[in-house]
Amino acid sequence: MDVIETHRYRYRRPASNVTYLAHLFGVIAIIFMLVWLLHYRGGIDLDSDHANRIFNVHPFLMFFGFIFLVGEAMMVYKTVGAERKVQKYVHMFIHLLALCLGIVGIHSAFKFHEKSHIPNLRTLHSWIGIGTFSLFCLQWLLGLSLFIFGGSSIETRARAAPWHVVGGRALFFMAICAALTGLMQRATLLQPMMNKNESGLINFLGLAILLFGVSVELSISLARYI
Amino acid sequence: MDVIETHRYRYRRPASNVTYLAHLFGVIAIIFMLVWLLHYRGGIDLDSDHANRIFNVHPFLMFFGFIFLVGEAMMVYKTVGAERKVQKYVHMFIHLLALCLGIVGIHSAFKFHEKSHIPNLRTLHSWIGIGTFSLFCLQWLLGLSLFIFGGSSIETRARAAPWHVVGGRALFFMAICAALTGLMQRATLLQPMMNKNESGLINFLGLAILLFGVSVELSISLARYI
Ligand code: HEM
Ligand code: HEM
Repeated sequence: MDVIETHRYRYRRPASNVTYLAHLFGVIAIIFMLVWLLHYRGGIDLDSDHANRIFNVHPFLMFFGFIFLVGEAMMVYKTVGAERKVQKYVHMFIHLLALCLGIVGIHSAFKFHEKSHIPNLRTLHSWIGIGTFSLFCLQWLLGLSLFIFGGSSIETRARAAPWHVVGGRALFFMAICAALTGLMQRATLLQPMMNKNESGLINFLGLAILLFGVSVELSISLARYI
Repeated sequence: MDVIETHRYRYRRPASNVTYLAHLFGVIAIIFMLVWLLHYRGGIDLDSDHANRIFNVHPFLMFFGFIFLVGEAMMVYKTVGAERKVQKYVHMFIHLLALCLGIVGIHSAFKFHEKSHIPNLRTLHSWIGIGTFSLFCLQWLLGLSLFIFGGSSIETRARAAPWHVVGGRALFFMAICAALTGLMQRATLLQPMMNKNESGLINFLGLAILLFGVSVELSISLARYI
């Protein structure tokens, strides 16, 4: 009962200032990402003849499509003022959208590798990325069968809920690490070909992604402690 | 009062399985790091004539000296079976040690740059690293003045405690991101000069660091939810 009580309470909490900060950093990161890819890196196009434009789909969809939407889905219980059931469905649905866009994003990295004859899944970034994404799909399926489909009892749900929250937060943490290692790898490879403006922009993009991650996590934990 | 109660309760919790996993991943990461630096990268020596050996001090001290000790310090309330006051002093002291070793570790990166005529503080990794480390020093000083020195009232401490916990966790998260971006940068630069064994070892080292980070965070949050 205790856990259910805590949860009821959390669902009624209003969005805190940290939640607004999270939206802000997320939007700033999307803008920086677009300026970087469109202005400095030749554009975003999955069907291009230029391998680089195919690659550019990857960071854009992995941040905007996957990480940003997942972060927003995690904060739904604080930002969407509706019945718990509605919040739950919105939470599930945004995650589904994020997973679909994530699949296209990962596809574009493989397509780029094929076109450029680079071997697949060799780097630390690709290991963290594919591992995190696979566990994410699993977490979504588990959540669906536990909390959306009607089979499980109230007690089972109450016992599973903290694990769902803690596991989801760990996966979000890992997704931020995937994005930052990917950005770092790209920045290191482009280093000899970049001017100072572009490398500064990439650094600020990385900081915005990191601060988005930290503020989403804070927004969720502060609702529980304070 | 509520917050103090929660805290008292937490301090008495035994170490969970996740805590043991955290120690395990931490030790594995230290071993992989040593094999990498000693066997593949020519050794660790701050006073060497070889720039690379000077550099090698950096990843070793930043993981073993800084991140590993900080993680252990965060879990002290679960692993050291002693009075609360003793736990608090051990927590403070391990953090102090981590900060000192971290300063030497950062110094070695600057020394390496000077010797190799590489400009300082240009990369995303160095920005995340120096930012995280500075905020860490601040957090330590704040903790010292609030919880160790006698000036603040019980109520002030109780109100500050959740912020201290949440802030510390965010900084730990950022430190893991710093380590992984650093490793990714180094791996990308070494890529043309590495054989398959070394690049596999680096990937497993990165995964061990990530899993250490995740399991420390889980060990702390599970004590609160379950
Ligand atoms: C959560 C977010 C992300 C995930 C799950 C992810 C996943 C992946 C995967 C699985 C690959 C391997 C493709 C292959 O080997 O054929 C890959 C490649 C790559 N990704 Fe990401 N990625 C993410 C975000 C990013 C971001 C934001 C960037 C920024 C530029 C990026 C840069 C790269 C690069 C440079 C490669 C090619 C080199 C390699 O094999 O590692 N990634 N990514
Ligand atoms: C929390 C851990 C870490 C912190 C706070 C940190 C901090 C820093 C700082 C401040 C610099 C800049 C030095 C300069 O510009 O002169 C730097 C450089 C560097 N670090 Fe780290 N570091 C950490 C972990 C690591 C790890 C584990 C590696 C793994 C190899 C690494 C690899 C590098 C590399 C390659 C450089 C030189 C290139 C650059 O300027 O970014 N770092 N680090």
